[in-house]
Amino acid sequence: MENFTFYSPTYFMFGKEAENKTGSLVKRFGGSKVLIHYGGGSVVRSGLLDRVKDSLTKEGIGFAELGGVRPNPRSGLVYEGIELCKKEKVDFILAVGGGSTIDSSKAIAAGVLYSGDFWDFYSGKLIEEALPVGTILTIAAAGSEGSPDSVITREEDMMKRGATGDAIRPKFSILNPALTQTLPAFQSACGITDIMAHLYERYLTNSKEVEVTDRLIEALLLTMKHEGPRVIEDPDNYEARANIMWAGMMAHNNSCGVGRTQDWNSHNIEHELSALYDVAHGAGLAVTMPAVFKYVMKHNIMRFAQVAVRVWGCSMDFENPEATALEGINRLADFLTSIGMPRNFAELGANEADIPTLVENLCCGNGREGSISGFVTLDKEDCTKIYRMMV
Amino acid sequence: MENFTFYSPTYFMFGKEAENKTGSLVKRFGGSKVLIHYGGGSVVRSGLLDRVKDSLTKEGIGFAELGGVRPNPRSGLVYEGIELCKKEKVDFILAVGGGSTIDSSKAIAAGVLYSGDFWDFYSGKLIEEALPVGTILTIAAAGSEGSPDSVITREEDMMKRGATGDAIRPKFSILNPALTQTLPAFQSACGITDIMAHLYERYLTNSKEVEVTDRLIEALLLTMKHEGPRVIEDPDNYEARANIMWAGMMAHNNSCGVGRTQDWNSHNIEHELSALYDVAHGAGLAVTMPAVFKYVMKHNIMRFAQVAVRVWGCSMDFENPEATALEGINRLADFLTSIGMPRNFAELGANEADIPTLVENLCCGNGREGSISGFVTLDKEDCTKIYRMMV
Repeated sequence: MENFTFYSPTYFMFGKEAENKTGSLVKRFGGSKVLIHYGGGSVVRSGLLDRVKDSLTKEGIGFAELGGVRPNPRSGLVYEGIELCKKEKVDFILAVGGGSTIDSSKAIAAGVLYSGDFWDFYSGKLIEEALPVGTILTIAAAGSEGSPDSVITREEDMMKRGATGDAIRPKFSILNPALTQTLPAFQSACGITDIMAHLYERYLTNSKEVEVTDRLIEALLLTMKHEGPRVIEDPDNYEARANIMWAGMMAHNNSCGVGRTQDWNSHNIEHELSALYDVAHGAGLAVTMPAVFKYVMKHNIMRFAQVAVRVWGCSMDFENPEATALEGINRLADFLTSIGMPRNFAELGANEADIPTLVENLCCGNGREGSISGFVTLDKEDCTKIYRMMV
Repeated sequence: MENFTFYSPTYFMFGKEAENKTGSLVKRFGGSKVLIHYGGGSVVRSGLLDRVKDSLTKEGIGFAELGGVRPNPRSGLVYEGIELCKKEKVDFILAVGGGSTIDSSKAIAAGVLYSGDFWDFYSGKLIEEALPVGTILTIAAAGSEGSPDSVITREEDMMKRGATGDAIRPKFSILNPALTQTLPAFQSACGITDIMAHLYERYLTNSKEVEVTDRLIEALLLTMKHEGPRVIEDPDNYEARANIMWAGMMAHNNSCGVGRTQDWNSHNIEHELSALYDVAHGAGLAVTMPAVFKYVMKHNIMRFAQVAVRVWGCSMDFENPEATALEGINRLADFLTSIGMPRNFAELGANEADIPTLVENLCCGNGREGSISGFVTLDKEDCTKIYRMMV
């Protein structure tokens, strides 16, 4: 096991009607004037936004509003949010939505207290100071509700990049599984895929002797395998939603990823797809993961055999472990198809002719020098082959 | 799943030589004058205390010292610590040791800022204010390094009781697995048993649809089953120590116990044993758990069958699930014996003639009215039968 630090100070309030505690939580964490940041009309139509405003008003907390966050959140709205916060003297950012809204909120929170261009943080600068952020989660997926990370797409060149820093960890996150019951099946499935990807990215490690985190990751994958199809079949299943929601947080607050090197190449390879085609991140991951895993499998057959046996219920082929490893990847792919995810470029809406552009952006964009590193270091030739496997 | 809140803001620094960061961590969390609280001579002899003092001195942090914490920590030393802190104007408590030292430190931290008798907190009063506490852990066991709990024994009547409050959660905890390599095998085994008990207490729930926390608990039990014997066989196995150390924290910071009712009757029943005989808590639990589980098994056979199959590798007997449930309990008991734990009153040093006293203290002491509640509510007759099963 590698040396590590772990710090997850977010206060989680989980359960039915938890959003009615928003006002008291903002107060507890020092907010007096809030920017409510959200996406489309669903939080308005469902009445959630009104309940949140009521809760703030009851505690005497003022607010400004900024809607319009879209999936793969953009830099333009972040600049707008920063200006609005300065003008309205906002001292707390409240994200009402999913990972995109939370990531946009984190970017605004960091940008308000920074004299330079907020994009500096998305070019490698650590976020050391930010307005406090709270979240009300409406989709179990990104894990941003318990993470110090944010991903934003710069509009002028569609560059999608991440920033990090403990300063943008949410002070509190409200997780009410009932709020996710109105999601369309496709979005629920994208969330399930994203959570499973966060687990696989941590599972694919070059560290030795990491039994405890292996087992924790497998536990969360088993949960997703059991609960995912239940949610797709019955969107109103509160209990299945609840199990997925906690798994989604635990998958990404890093309690199951500490002390081990991690991969993240599936995310890197996917980010170019969602940046170029504006496809849902989860859908992109569903196409990306099986291709990446088959390409890198031989780097550590036993690791892929282990997850095949422990999570996917494969029988170990002791004469040919590679067959077991491959069967586990195929079962993952079949699982993702079964919940409605795309399998290839065509289903995703991606275009084979763009592969050189995808590879160029991936391996040479934003300071990279011809390759991406993780479980296996992948150069332009490797990445070209992987994208071709998805066609 | 039940509604819940979860809050685990402790900063963990994990790995080799992590204790050399003590000074900077105390500084980060606002300490300028520290009480170093510890147990016996081993932290002195090993040189750990000197390294800690060097680290504090380098950061210009002053300190007072109070050693002498013993297993099942006593109220007398807590009173002494409170007085010392007031006299020395201490503003930070640093625990160097195991669960007993950490629990004693938490009691002192709460007592210093309280005008009444600190025992009020161990009689049901919530701890809302305390000096900040940091820990340097020397045994993986109690999980106190990441919990808001403390257990102290009152000397005049040997009453062993717990207190809780977010205010006594450690601000930081330093977890260096190498510090646990010098532990005698018996103490290592007691720690392993205590960690497994923390997991079983959470596993025995009356909540339905708790797949995610079931799976997480099973993951940690599987880790203990794999790594426990490796540590007993080879005390210097850093990797096995590391896996157990993180499992011990995760077993008790409640990330795997949220949203479900929990048991804690094995702990309650054991506490009377360690209070009366001053036996090691883990050793007492090894004798207690199998008896309690066999007694309450029929309350939910499928729950015991599930852990038997998923953790202990039993084959499910679909015609007779009770046989599977019982086999799982027997495998747990055999496992504990295999790592050197006692099986019965005689091996523990307990006396059958004391059972009426144990039952009276257990069911009627400290405000209880004839029973203890948990997975199953147990009255005096039940508890008498359970203690007799241990003879």
